[in-house]
Amino acid sequence: MVVAQTTKTYPLSAEELSKINAYWRAANYLSVGQIYLLDNPLLKQPLQLEHVKPRLLGHWGTTPGLNFIYAHLNRVIKAQDLNMIYITGPGHGGPGLVANTYLEGTYSEVYPNISPDEAGMKQLFKQFSFPGGVPSHVAPETPGSIHEGGELGYALSHAFGAAFDNPDLIVACVVGDGEAETGPLATAWHSNKFLNPVTDGAVLPILHLNGYKIANPTVLARISHEELESLFVGYGYKPYFVEGSDPEPVHQAMARTLEAAIADIKAIQQEARSGGSSERPQWPMIVMRTPKGWTGPAEVDGKKTEDFWRSHQVPLSNMAQEGDHVQQLERWMKSYRPEELFDETGALIPELKALAPEGERRMGANLHTNGGVLLRDLKMPDFSDYAVPVEKPATIYAEATKVTGGFLRDVMKLNMDNFRLVGPDETASNRLSAVLEVTDRTWAAEIKPEDEHLAPDGRVMEMLSEHTCQGWLEGYLLTGRHGFFSCYEAFIHIVDSMFNQHAKWLKTTRHIAWRQPLASLTYLLTSHVWRQDHNGFSHQDPGFIDHVMNKKAEVVRVYLPPDANTLLSVTDHCLRSRHYINVIVAGKQPSLQYLDMDSAIAHCTKGVGIWDWASNDQGSEPDLVMACAGDVPTLETLAAVDILRQNFPELKIRVVNVVDLMTLQPESEHPHGLSDKNFDSLFTTDKPIIFAFHGYPWLIHRLTYRRTNHHNLHVRGYKEEGTTTTPFDMVVLNDLDRFDLVMDAIERVPSLQSTGAYVKQAMQDKLIEHKRYVTERGDDLPEIKNWQWPY
Amino acid sequence: MVVAQTTKTYPLSAEELSKINAYWRAANYLSVGQIYLLDNPLLKQPLQLEHVKPRLLGHWGTTPGLNFIYAHLNRVIKAQDLNMIYITGPGHGGPGLVANTYLEGTYSEVYPNISPDEAGMKQLFKQFSFPGGVPSHVAPETPGSIHEGGELGYALSHAFGAAFDNPDLIVACVVGDGEAETGPLATAWHSNKFLNPVTDGAVLPILHLNGYKIANPTVLARISHEELESLFVGYGYKPYFVEGSDPEPVHQAMARTLEAAIADIKAIQQEARSGGSSERPQWPMIVMRTPKGWTGPAEVDGKKTEDFWRSHQVPLSNMAQEGDHVQQLERWMKSYRPEELFDETGALIPELKALAPEGERRMGANLHTNGGVLLRDLKMPDFSDYAVPVEKPATIYAEATKVTGGFLRDVMKLNMDNFRLVGPDETASNRLSAVLEVTDRTWAAEIKPEDEHLAPDGRVMEMLSEHTCQGWLEGYLLTGRHGFFSCYEAFIHIVDSMFNQHAKWLKTTRHIAWRQPLASLTYLLTSHVWRQDHNGFSHQDPGFIDHVMNKKAEVVRVYLPPDANTLLSVTDHCLRSRHYINVIVAGKQPSLQYLDMDSAIAHCTKGVGIWDWASNDQGSEPDLVMACAGDVPTLETLAAVDILRQNFPELKIRVVNVVDLMTLQPESEHPHGLSDKNFDSLFTTDKPIIFAFHGYPWLIHRLTYRRTNHHNLHVRGYKEEGTTTTPFDMVVLNDLDRFDLVMDAIERVPSLQSTGAYVKQAMQDKLIEHKRYVTERGDDLPEIKNWQWPY
Repeated sequence: MVVAQTTKTYPLSAEELSKINAYWRAANYLSVGQIYLLDNPLLKQPLQLEHVKPRLLGHWGTTPGLNFIYAHLNRVIKAQDLNMIYITGPGHGGPGLVANTYLEGTYSEVYPNISPDEAGMKQLFKQFSFPGGVPSHVAPETPGSIHEGGELGYALSHAFGAAFDNPDLIVACVVGDGEAETGPLATAWHSNKFLNPVTDGAVLPILHLNGYKIANPTVLARISHEELESLFVGYGYKPYFVEGSDPEPVHQAMARTLEAAIADIKAIQQEARSGGSSERPQWPMIVMRTPKGWTGPAEVDGKKTEDFWRSHQVPLSNMAQEGDHVQQLERWMKSYRPEELFDETGALIPELKALAPEGERRMGANLHTNGGVLLRDLKMPDFSDYAVPVEKPATIYAEATKVTGGFLRDVMKLNMDNFRLVGPDETASNRLSAVLEVTDRTWAAEIKPEDEHLAPDGRVMEMLSEHTCQGWLEGYLLTGRHGFFSCYEAFIHIVDSMFNQHAKWLKTTRHIAWRQPLASLTYLLTSHVWRQDHNGFSHQDPGFIDHVMNKKAEVVRVYLPPDANTLLSVTDHCLRSRHYINVIVAGKQPSLQYLDMDSAIAHCTKGVGIWDWASNDQGSEPDLVMACAGDVPTLETLAAVDILRQNFPELKIRVVNVVDLMTLQPESEHPHGLSDKNFDSLFTTDKPIIFAFHGYPWLIHRLTYRRTNHHNLHVRGYKEEGTTTTPFDMVVLNDLDRFDLVMDAIERVPSLQSTGAYVKQAMQDKLIEHKRYVTERGDDLPEIKNWQWPY
Repeated sequence: MVVAQTTKTYPLSAEELSKINAYWRAANYLSVGQIYLLDNPLLKQPLQLEHVKPRLLGHWGTTPGLNFIYAHLNRVIKAQDLNMIYITGPGHGGPGLVANTYLEGTYSEVYPNISPDEAGMKQLFKQFSFPGGVPSHVAPETPGSIHEGGELGYALSHAFGAAFDNPDLIVACVVGDGEAETGPLATAWHSNKFLNPVTDGAVLPILHLNGYKIANPTVLARISHEELESLFVGYGYKPYFVEGSDPEPVHQAMARTLEAAIADIKAIQQEARSGGSSERPQWPMIVMRTPKGWTGPAEVDGKKTEDFWRSHQVPLSNMAQEGDHVQQLERWMKSYRPEELFDETGALIPELKALAPEGERRMGANLHTNGGVLLRDLKMPDFSDYAVPVEKPATIYAEATKVTGGFLRDVMKLNMDNFRLVGPDETASNRLSAVLEVTDRTWAAEIKPEDEHLAPDGRVMEMLSEHTCQGWLEGYLLTGRHGFFSCYEAFIHIVDSMFNQHAKWLKTTRHIAWRQPLASLTYLLTSHVWRQDHNGFSHQDPGFIDHVMNKKAEVVRVYLPPDANTLLSVTDHCLRSRHYINVIVAGKQPSLQYLDMDSAIAHCTKGVGIWDWASNDQGSEPDLVMACAGDVPTLETLAAVDILRQNFPELKIRVVNVVDLMTLQPESEHPHGLSDKNFDSLFTTDKPIIFAFHGYPWLIHRLTYRRTNHHNLHVRGYKEEGTTTTPFDMVVLNDLDRFDLVMDAIERVPSLQSTGAYVKQAMQDKLIEHKRYVTERGDDLPEIKNWQWPY
């Protein structure tokens, strides 16, 4: 495969070259200033130790490369009136992006106290990595950022997510050669097989090969040019190389290469959009190999620093201890000749200011990076139109996710430009295939005649990479659109850490005035722990909700709808919500249905409530509360209540079902939390509570330990006892089955402790009968499979 | 780059071809039998519905390819007396691997009831995906497995982990084209830059391109041959292609290609081991493109099935409902001509049995796959030799991880063939660089003159991929060696899901008699939540221990040593332990030291205890228990106790420090759990407890909610309030600081509620003074930074 090389033109005139280099010097000067200076920002006085921050926290290494790229992107944006945003993959890129948005004016617009003058510059410098200031990453506080870069690996999937359905947008995405070693980044290159040149924008990846991580070289910097080129050809790109350490030729090469890459992008789009080739295009990407810590100190204390890992953080440190470090810092900063860049007041000189794009073309002001501003409400069908008719509770069957699939299909149909469904090859397995009636799966790679529902403009995005699905969706939401993630429950843990970062982004941006709320990120976790008949122990883990509950109450929501109509109601609510992470857990298998639509809406609105139809304590205090959360625990609870009522007709039982897990927390801990009074009115202050829970049982204790009646709460749930077995055997293995729940109740209700012995023995016998049958027949007893609510 | 192609030889004679194909048929027959049959295993009677399992759970699609590869690996093992193991990347490969280990005899050796006869075959079929039987993955129950394949993406990193320091071993690693889309797999290809041909074995990756996942094509199957070849050349391999659907030529191609690949491996090893080229070799890999569900039904109910995603699971289902599915199944199974493969008793005929390797050369019997058998104890230096001298508690400073670095250096030195340290480019950052005094970082890519401590035979493995580090280490431990993982605390969440799978493997194998215990997987989580001065909010998350605590008590351990000597003691304990996952959380910054070595050993042995030197309740019941777990909370607790003692000299305070978090749980829940009596004797039954905790505070509640005095327990910890700030400001943001702890105590000790108002006000004033100072100076107040224990 031959990769086209651009002709060696020199697109920059001497004046342009001088100016763009000056702009870069200005950004580098401001970056070093942020890392080091408390005062004397323009170096008008000789630099003294007291001008330097007492704690030096920052990372210089990646910054000059980021600044170099920013200046060149500015140039092509301005020359060609491009709609472009900048994603900073490398960690600790904050100083560079802050410097550039300050130079172009956006920073001062959103933070007027960081004004474009000496006083503002002093503030700009001081606030960086300083208490009360801004972090060293490209944090949410940075205008133009949709990607912090604090945890590495998600730049490219975010970039593609931003580009989907934004046909005019070009997402420049700088990938660090450190983060390129992460798994999520390594597979995200394949996102080009999911990009439609007709209706999506373009991603221009720029691999910044500066050679080093914290204390090691990077893998991609230490393989041959041939291998590196092959790798990106193999990933389906047309790689361009910009390499060097002498700024002037590298400026020319970068200018030349960006022009070529933009021309490629336009040619690809033009051909595809005029109905030309439907072949998957080879989108351009750039490998920029420049020194780490470029233009910084070549050596410090006799040790190689520029172009080496020693420039990763703060090249000059120990300012007080080491004799001339202050002077070295001054020489370094003066090497950028600030007096040529900024006027006496500290403002960037007009000739340089003119290099930046204007208005919303500035990358720091591009509205796509503040997605809430562009966000439109979804057009929503009436979810109650999809209701399963339930005339009598627990007597008819439906597949909850399949019912919601119909609803999602029409959500999709009404929002064909700003709603996408993502998931790792599981949309059909999770019974959501109705969506394929109105759209296809996104697929820009080869399509064969026998393929079904694959098309470049499909809107169901499936790749066997939860990381990529999550990254795409985050990028899509962060740029002001809507989406939905369906996933096997156990494997959503693959994105635990990505979830963390998105939750932190949401928490932080709630308190940034100029950022507008985004559409929520909603997970539907199905194929859950209790129904892994095909898959066994490796696929059994309900712990994602535990993980989620550690994040700030203001950004997380967890729902466990017990049946199809409650799932519809919860899904509708989640899709309309803003700036949350919603987790919905619901089964996909045919299951008993409990609530008609009106009851489902009422129940979901409260989030928790007594099921009167299943209780017999009407008008009196119950002897026992049987509580449940989740579809399978609800089934087992009702079956247990049936046994209890048949055997102990005088026993007053109250059935409480929990849909919104947050209602269990004290109201001081979560806005959905019940008041103690309301909690007590549901769960009593002194009666035994048997709580059948979908997940790990201690989560319920964690949520309720402050409640009055907590010491009477007995929780059953998943306790890591799993294997490949039948649905009922799974609950038996974890003591969550109806028979064990009945025994739990008998042990805890004082009035049953003597009279209940016979029934306890009957339950034990039932368990033995079950075990014998399941081991012989590989199936559950018909009476268990066919149980229905008899009243 | 030109890739050598093997000459088109036909290495199999007609007889060999016929035999190897028959062996493959036998494995396929046994695989289909496992998925479908309850009885009539040899089809001696006409197949009836009652011979078929009532619930059909299994996955056919991947199996024939796995069987094909197994047969061919057998051939080269036998011909060349190779030491080889087989790693099954694709999910649901169980039937194939079980079939093959049954054919070669290992299965019946470890499970005598699954005998090599008709009765055994019937059992073999029945047990698959059946209650009380075996899962559909290559689960721990499968002889020869070190990799379940239940969660996708880790095959290749496991394979490399197995190959390290096993110079004679060849690890054949089948990578599914579905899992090849995952991030962890996509970056694991780069493991070839960390393999030393002199002292490590070889990995032979076989990418099985069968084209489909659950319901979609795979990305790598739908890019051009040129791109695919470039991709693997780019990853640094020499790719061979074996492609086709007609078995005979594919057999010849596979035999030819395996011979060539093994010859390449031997040539590379010979050259490297004879002191030849030190260039990084291009190891061979194979792309095998054969149909999904090969040899299965071409069509089912008129729909394409073989060579399509419809063969992913059970191609023929609804056996009772669909008219001739039982007959189709019989025709399919008979197409393998079982009567030619098995004799009347059900035993494999001798001519075919002779094709399998013998004894421990059989891949199911290779001891490397039952690592506990090969495991040798580490040679251990005396950890107390590295002790920090502590004459008086809390007056001298040390860096805990740096001290342990010295210990690890000597562990490394004494075990240079079976101990490795892994971590994502953070060994130096985590202050463990002493290990580099005795070894280097593993690096088989280009080395430049200025590089330090990089070498192909280095034993410190750093790649910026937590997934790959985890996978390498798991593979290394599973094959009977030792290791240690150091990681930033926040980013260990990246491997949450891998941790799950390893914990499940450990839990399951505890109950498999023929599997021997492995060395524990020990994490040192440092650069923790409280000291992210450089990094901020994105790097703050102490929740991995919450995640760990959801797993079975029998396999997880969590330690929070408060200083250097306790860290030494805990580390020694963890390195000697077996078959656990140990999590140690400890800081790397200079910190006050509390215990001399003898006290540290005594304290860590108990796991929790009263610090008499810090308490003043000797000989009496305290008024207040100040408890702490973790280094920073311990510091704040002691500083708070100092303030309390100065202000309220008559107040009896007990200081309890927790190293082993599991001691807090009831003894019924965890073997380390304190009895209620012992717990009460430490924490009292009725006095206020102020507990300063390293992590999320509710974890302590979750562990202690059943304890007598739980209602008096007040926990402070991390509550997601973080940013880039000073160490003390971080604890202030989360109300874990000394001043807040004092106020918490005053509010809860009855005798202080009136007298304490003045001190509370003083604490508020201190917080204001701190805030003012930190915002101005970017540093903590000297009196806070320099606090020492004054008594």
